[in-house]
Amino acid sequence: MARRIEHIAVAVKDVKASVKLFETLLGMKGSDIETLPEEHVKVAFFELEGSHLELVQGIGSDSPMSTFIERRGEGLHHICVEVEDLPQTLELLHAAGFPLIDRVPKAGSRGRRVAFVHPKGCSGVLIELVEQPSRA
Amino acid sequence: MARRIEHIAVAVKDVKASVKLFETLLGMKGSDIETLPEEHVKVAFFELEGSHLELVQGIGSDSPMSTFIERRGEGLHHICVEVEDLPQTLELLHAAGFPLIDRVPKAGSRGRRVAFVHPKGCSGVLIELVEQPSRA
Repeated sequence: MARRIEHIAVAVKDVKASVKLFETLLGMKGSDIETLPEEHVKVAFFELEGSHLELVQGIGSDSPMSTFIERRGEGLHHICVEVEDLPQTLELLHAAGFPLIDRVPKAGSRGRRVAFVHPKGCSGVLIELVEQPSRA
Repeated sequence: MARRIEHIAVAVKDVKASVKLFETLLGMKGSDIETLPEEHVKVAFFELEGSHLELVQGIGSDSPMSTFIERRGEGLHHICVEVEDLPQTLELLHAAGFPLIDRVPKAGSRGRRVAFVHPKGCSGVLIELVEQPSRA
């Protein structure tokens, strides 16, 4: 069962510029910018109550984030939902016919396991599932 | 200052079908479907910890939600951020040059005042600001 929206990710062209913009918009300080070379992205966060907003810039033109922006422009990219039991959730969704991008959990950020469900099975929404911290 | 992500809205073609789909995906029951004739939409909610997911179907081909789907397909439509003081936030954002769709608060759902900021000023994200409940 889903518990909360862990984060919302926004695809941006220039994470440094977008951090400044959201700092004004949200009236709070964003995180430092982190580079994740393996995922071909630079990211920054804004911590809100119970959830956070993630700004993600692709590195290089073959980054999926760059491709997304080329196709659709900057904007909302995916939501991440925290679930109680990730392997069990994936079994249930597979049995129900959901198009899983990841059939089994994979390593995500902050030592937690994640899996993605394809937007074509979720009303156009790319959904990341993350296991709750106690199971990490 | 922003406090939390109050909701995330998804534009869908058929809210009834999408409710069923997200009930399986999230492992929880969605709300009943409400029709809001003045806003030309039908909506349903999923209550998560501290936030909720809103599925919105446009009524009629001239509904902004229908236009959105025609242009971009189903998917993430906007995020709603709860702020401490909505009029003051709008003043600050206006002074900072943000493109406000609503220069002053207007009536939103559940008796709370809201205002929208245009995505062209927010890295492609349509942002709804809502005042916190204590100020409603």
